[in-house]
Amino acid sequence: MSRDTLFAQAAAALGYSFDGEIKIGGNYVPLLRDGHTVYLSGQIPRVGNDVVVAGRAGGEATLAQAQRAAQICVMRALALLQRSLGSLDAVRTILRITVYVQCTPDFTQHSEVADGASELLFAILGSAGAHTRTSVGVLQLPKNATVELDMVAAVE
Amino acid sequence: MSRDTLFAQAAAALGYSFDGEIKIGGNYVPLLRDGHTVYLSGQIPRVGNDVVVAGRAGGEATLAQAQRAAQICVMRALALLQRSLGSLDAVRTILRITVYVQCTPDFTQHSEVADGASELLFAILGSAGAHTRTSVGVLQLPKNATVELDMVAAVE
Amino acid sequence: MSRDTLFAQAAAALGYSFDGEIKIGGNYVPLLRDGHTVYLSGQIPRVGNDVVVAGRAGGEATLAQAQRAAQICVMRALALLQRSLGSLDAVRTILRITVYVQCTPDFTQHSEVADGASELLFAILGSAGAHTRTSVGVLQLPKNATVELDMVAAVE
Repeated sequence: MSRDTLFAQAAAALGYSFDGEIKIGGNYVPLLRDGHTVYLSGQIPRVGNDVVVAGRAGGEATLAQAQRAAQICVMRALALLQRSLGSLDAVRTILRITVYVQCTPDFTQHSEVADGASELLFAILGSAGAHTRTSVGVLQLPKNATVELDMVAAVE
Repeated sequence: MSRDTLFAQAAAALGYSFDGEIKIGGNYVPLLRDGHTVYLSGQIPRVGNDVVVAGRAGGEATLAQAQRAAQICVMRALALLQRSLGSLDAVRTILRITVYVQCTPDFTQHSEVADGASELLFAILGSAGAHTRTSVGVLQLPKNATVELDMVAAVE
Repeated sequence: MSRDTLFAQAAAALGYSFDGEIKIGGNYVPLLRDGHTVYLSGQIPRVGNDVVVAGRAGGEATLAQAQRAAQICVMRALALLQRSLGSLDAVRTILRITVYVQCTPDFTQHSEVADGASELLFAILGSAGAHTRTSVGVLQLPKNATVELDMVAAVE
């Protein structure tokens, strides 16, 4: 199955469409290409106009909800890559994701939250989904989002 | 008007000079060039020896003050680029800025803070000021600074 | 003295061995090479199965302990580079380190913590240890680690 089909299936499984505008929250661009490297702006779990997972991991947001937030963030990043490149087949590898988790002071499962995003990368991109990762727990995020994720990718 | 002139005008409008030493806080370098990519160290709103905007956004620091902090951070980064390259005309694009905002637990306007930096990039660099961006809310920053900003730029 | 010898001496001085598996906490890879650029995943002060420095800088962890945490993180990163490249002699420069410090709300010595890592980079790599740096204070880190550090390096 093609990566674009796997992406569509993952979106359907999540219950969200990423076909509409991928809104950003300020005066910048969602993605920039420099040679074969693509930088993507920080993504929060926004679908259309709504932030669909908000609040602190370990508090208002359960681990499962935070993982779902990480999944939505990475799907937004992949949707941006797909539109820019024409197809996810043009992704060579994901060089880096940084996963910021809004959490309670004693929540320590940031890696488990980030695994939500990591597993989708492998599921959709196969071996091209291999990536380095940093996950940290932050005090707050734009619009009270539970997770924010940014990415650097290598493309054909 | 040249970018260097626009930079000087922005500095005058802010009321600060960026002609002196751009001090850093430890055992590292302010900027490194690798081919046509330049990495810049995290900048806090320090002018000369003084951190001129300190404290939490949403607390001691108003939104307007935090935006001003982001402006000073990005001006420091541009001053470093200008010195290293001879002129801001050699900037091809700003690949990434990451904006860390020291904030209160319920402050969610990190994007609005970062817009302070983003707008200056467009004002000074024009279309070369386009950039990807990540903004997050952190618990503390070096020297109690309200904002820290780092950058990756592509240059000629 | 060769960099690999200096690395071994630094490990001995720290009292830890970095010969075993460098464990990571999730579904990703420790390092990825793209041309002459290497991205390394976020490292916490884990030796074998144990996180050897945990808790907040300024609270349970003293400044000296947090600096030691930063040292262990950077040694893990160097161990990963050494294994991947065969020798640390193949490192051309360290383009970026980002140092996340789990801290108390009023701890502001993040730069001093990060100096623990920075000094080791210069001690082991000499002029190739020059690097840009960002250090911030975060609310929590995976497994309650005191420090997390990630890196981008340029290699031969």
